Amino acid sequence: MTALNATSPETLAQLLPSLHERFERFQQAGLNLDLTRGKPCPAQLDLSSPMLTLVAENDYRAADGTDCRNYGGLDGLPEAKALFADYMGVERDEVIIGGNASLTVMYDTFMRAMLMGVGTGEPPWSQLPRVRFLCPSPGYDRHFAICANLGIEMLPVDMTSEGPDMDTVERLVAEDEAIKGIWCVPIFSNPTGDVYSDETVERLAQMPTRAADFRIFWDNAYAVHHFAGDPPTQAHILTACKAAGVPERPLLFGSTSKIAFPGGGLALMAGSARNMDWVRGQLFFQTIGPDKLNQLRHVRFFRDLDGIRQHMQKHAAIVRPRFEAVETILRRELAGKGIADWTRPRGGYFVSFNTQDGCAQAVVAMAREAGVKLTPAGATYPLGKDPRDRNIRIAPTFASLEDVEAAVEVLAVCTQIVTIEKQPTT
Amino acid sequence: MTALNATSPETLAQLLPSLHERFERFQQAGLNLDLTRGKPCPAQLDLSSPMLTLVAENDYRAADGTDCRNYGGLDGLPEAKALFADYMGVERDEVIIGGNASLTVMYDTFMRAMLMGVGTGEPPWSQLPRVRFLCPSPGYDRHFAICANLGIEMLPVDMTSEGPDMDTVERLVAEDEAIKGIWCVPIFSNPTGDVYSDETVERLAQMPTRAADFRIFWDNAYAVHHFAGDPPTQAHILTACKAAGVPERPLLFGSTSKIAFPGGGLALMAGSARNMDWVRGQLFFQTIGPDKLNQLRHVRFFRDLDGIRQHMQKHAAIVRPRFEAVETILRRELAGKGIADWTRPRGGYFVSFNTQDGCAQAVVAMAREAGVKLTPAGATYPLGKDPRDRNIRIAPTFASLEDVEAAVEVLAVCTQIVTIEKQPTT
Repeated sequence: MTALNATSPETLAQLLPSLHERFERFQQAGLNLDLTRGKPCPAQLDLSSPMLTLVAENDYRAADGTDCRNYGGLDGLPEAKALFADYMGVERDEVIIGGNASLTVMYDTFMRAMLMGVGTGEPPWSQLPRVRFLCPSPGYDRHFAICANLGIEMLPVDMTSEGPDMDTVERLVAEDEAIKGIWCVPIFSNPTGDVYSDETVERLAQMPTRAADFRIFWDNAYAVHHFAGDPPTQAHILTACKAAGVPERPLLFGSTSKIAFPGGGLALMAGSARNMDWVRGQLFFQTIGPDKLNQLRHVRFFRDLDGIRQHMQKHAAIVRPRFEAVETILRRELAGKGIADWTRPRGGYFVSFNTQDGCAQAVVAMAREAGVKLTPAGATYPLGKDPRDRNIRIAPTFASLEDVEAAVEVLAVCTQIVTIEKQPTT
Repeated sequence: MTALNATSPETLAQLLPSLHERFERFQQAGLNLDLTRGKPCPAQLDLSSPMLTLVAENDYRAADGTDCRNYGGLDGLPEAKALFADYMGVERDEVIIGGNASLTVMYDTFMRAMLMGVGTGEPPWSQLPRVRFLCPSPGYDRHFAICANLGIEMLPVDMTSEGPDMDTVERLVAEDEAIKGIWCVPIFSNPTGDVYSDETVERLAQMPTRAADFRIFWDNAYAVHHFAGDPPTQAHILTACKAAGVPERPLLFGSTSKIAFPGGGLALMAGSARNMDWVRGQLFFQTIGPDKLNQLRHVRFFRDLDGIRQHMQKHAAIVRPRFEAVETILRRELAGKGIADWTRPRGGYFVSFNTQDGCAQAVVAMAREAGVKLTPAGATYPLGKDPRDRNIRIAPTFASLEDVEAAVEVLAVCTQIVTIEKQPTT
């Protein structure tokens, strides 16, 4: 978070008339802006579009001669497994290529956990009196929605710039056998953009857990999605867990949704060979096999991990100015006023913006009156309830640069108005 | 089934030496033939291959302008829903376009039924002391595997040429509230090739069931897959169930796996708007949305239901000779001997072959010694156990015509040897 100096309430109050004037001008402008979802913009999609015709009428065979148009294979084409094992940093028998959405792979993992367990002999979670899950917050609403839908009790844990507050995590998992796992977005976390430190990774691997089948859901959605500075490095969770004697603890997820096409990409799952063997055994009941044609398109387009890295530099060049615009405008409007702070991520898809306590819902509602759609306040917390009502997720990738600038200006003006008007009049 | 006249045991026994000679020649020929799975042959796949490049670098928008490369939409592109609502014979709000495999959609429906129920207020099935399912047999092994994996008890019901034995079905569902559903492949049933009669459809719709949440899993996998004679007509199960006052009873499934590409096609689910609304509500937790690019490829290639029908005539021209070869050789080798009967389907992917009781496993094993792989005997029954050990599923589409002829000849010779040698010597 950016540290800001406070301005006196009296000084701020003097700003109100001009802020209201600006807000009225926004309303008159008839804006229709949307910063709600982490979607690539069309220019990003154009980067991958040559992929669409790389598999063609007379050109549909994998390297080993497999006709990718027909049935066959349960966990991925050999060359796709090779490429995405590299991507996930695991061995080839430790990765499974799934359908078009990692959310589906995570959801399916929960459904199996509820009905069949997680493959290491413990009872299915639906047979237990209760199941609880640690939810570093702010976090990803779709993660929390899976738990809510299954009646899994969510325990929020504060996010820090190094990952979840590990003192709290360690204490809770050591004492409560109902806690079966934790949601993690370890690199450019949704929405803070923070990168878990090596120490956090090691502590997650080494901490004693009361639940023998405790699982880390490691959603590495933004592993190669840096757009500023050097690419992040991070201790590997599977390596750390193997070293700690708990190789089955982490379940890794990834996707090419924000590398290639959202909804038209590949979902990835990785973990110990034992975990993956068990998942493969269960997948037999769910599918005849994946869409190999789309896997072949991906492999032909990216070739290898270097190909993915080079491709992501092109993404970075497109999204970086949008994030810079967010920072520039927030700083111009709010710096030094002590009424908000926000993150300055070096990758990922989001900026996490904090108002003063109790202001976020009002800010989002006011921005909407001026034609700017923001993710509902609270969405980044379990059950949509931000206990301090302060967090707003900003997703600047999809909108045009001009729209990002306009929308963030509206956000900043609304934040000031709401905050100042909430102050006790002295 | 083809009726055959019996030949006397003595006459059959005289055939043994020449049959053994032929079997030895098969062995010496080093055959390596496979009639195990219902896979289209490469020539069938070629029919759809122009589809592969119908969505391209600068041509990826749906009719309404939607950028199919990006997120958006939960249950299918509007034009895909229009086409496949026609295909399924339902309204547009009664169809959902899923991923690449209808097996997945069926499996997911079971997983939800176990954990959340089927959307009409009854308890989740996993909370009941037991769940039973009617399994018309012989049937599809992957259907039965889903039940087995979930601990659902399977009750085999005899298949007739008009569908499941409805007297038995009606009696069982009227008395046992644990029976939550029935598996049906209503057109060109797997493996018999039989088409359910209108009377069967009506009785399934009208029968009283003890379970309020009884569901018909209507896997219409071969709806347009006729290759001989006129296309079949059939009363519509959803229409019939609406008329009977149980609109939520049927859940319809389909796919383009054997229209376009197996594994690279589209999965379809259909049912009452109430059922589909509930599924859409649950899908929200499982996915951001389907692969719209592949939907767009399909719509552009087939255009409309007539386009699909014309396309299927081309499939028919390719598979018909293979089925004719099966019939010709079985008739030449076995007619009039009273030791086997088999179906003569007008569509679908299989021929169902019955030996005398207690012979099927031995026949499959013997054919394998001669280099012919057949689906394991029993696979067409729940838990892989054919109580009469007589049913063998023949899948003639993938192999070349010559290979089909050779493999069926081996099957016929092995059937004769096993049957004759099993006879009590008099």
